[in-house]
Amino acid sequence: MKIQTPPYGHPVEARERLLAAALEQFALRGYAATSVRELCEAAGVTKPVLYYYFKSKEGLFLQLMEETSAILETMIADLANYPGSARERIVHFITEVFNACDQQLPLIKLIYSILFGTPQGAPSFNLEQNYDRILETITGLVEEGIVRGEIARGNVNDIVWTIMACFSVTLEEQLCRCNPRIDGASMVRMLNLVFNGIAPH
Amino acid sequence: MKIQTPPYGHPVEARERLLAAALEQFALRGYAATSVRELCEAAGVTKPVLYYYFKSKEGLFLQLMEETSAILETMIADLANYPGSARERIVHFITEVFNACDQQLPLIKLIYSILFGTPQGAPSFNLEQNYDRILETITGLVEEGIVRGEIARGNVNDIVWTIMACFSVTLEEQLCRCNPRIDGASMVRMLNLVFNGIAPH
Repeated sequence: MKIQTPPYGHPVEARERLLAAALEQFALRGYAATSVRELCEAAGVTKPVLYYYFKSKEGLFLQLMEETSAILETMIADLANYPGSARERIVHFITEVFNACDQQLPLIKLIYSILFGTPQGAPSFNLEQNYDRILETITGLVEEGIVRGEIARGNVNDIVWTIMACFSVTLEEQLCRCNPRIDGASMVRMLNLVFNGIAPH
Repeated sequence: MKIQTPPYGHPVEARERLLAAALEQFALRGYAATSVRELCEAAGVTKPVLYYYFKSKEGLFLQLMEETSAILETMIADLANYPGSARERIVHFITEVFNACDQQLPLIKLIYSILFGTPQGAPSFNLEQNYDRILETITGLVEEGIVRGEIARGNVNDIVWTIMACFSVTLEEQLCRCNPRIDGASMVRMLNLVFNGIAPH
């Protein structure tokens, strides 16, 4: 049984509730239009609780972003121990990243709304940092694949972006559509098309 | 020499100035946050001029959207007279659409900001309509290619989305980055990779 200390609740829970509420409110209203009062009300905590854990609205936003980077770095680190051909490792990595995003769609929506939306005055955080880390990781896998003879020699950049394209378009379909027309399984089949080619052999 | 009738200017010019100003202001502030007064000031016209041409702010927005559809429909119609293999026709069509978007980036930015941004109360217009028309057109080209033996038999949907992915990721790179890392020429090379495959032969 959990020990509750009203009105803050369990400290860890209050922190988690604030992160969840921030995600929801920022995605709904935009970063700039969401006030500290609204965040606290949505999380069921008082302002000092927010200030204690995150110092400010900006701190709360940055924490949300930092957590996505931490998850991605763990996946990249784990990749070192994942065996198989370049193709298998690429499909595995992209699938892992896609699944993590798919389980955190509200967070991905928030990132997209800041990247593509009208300026919201969101605090400076390189939102493209994760995207760039994914590109870097695929680049490493493609280069490895070429050296091992598992990927045909060619413009590495073009190969990397073609792989990235399959990931991006599938993820965006989840963001924009109530009933996405492609999913993680389609993405894997698309990656296989990129490897095999769609021209007749 | 043009006949000017201050303060409205030449009628056609006033209409064009309003469309240009709307594009700029909606992209800058968002649809909801832009007032009729601001639109008129930016275009250098009075409110009756806006009401005369577009009836309302909503009408102005819808006109911007309708014009993109009209351009796309012309491209699709022209495709019927474009000779070549399925591969040539696909690359040609995607390049045409990409170039048109690239020349209208502020308009594409506005569409993305509404699709991915926080809700702005933009009037009901199926913003995905153009995207769906592009998908439909590629589907036709792919089916034709399979019948002619120019594309390997397979899941048509997967093939279409893999082609679409190269277009989307390249377009979005133009929207998000001051110095895009890929461009129309990269996109064509990526499409060629999709045809030829990246696995060694």
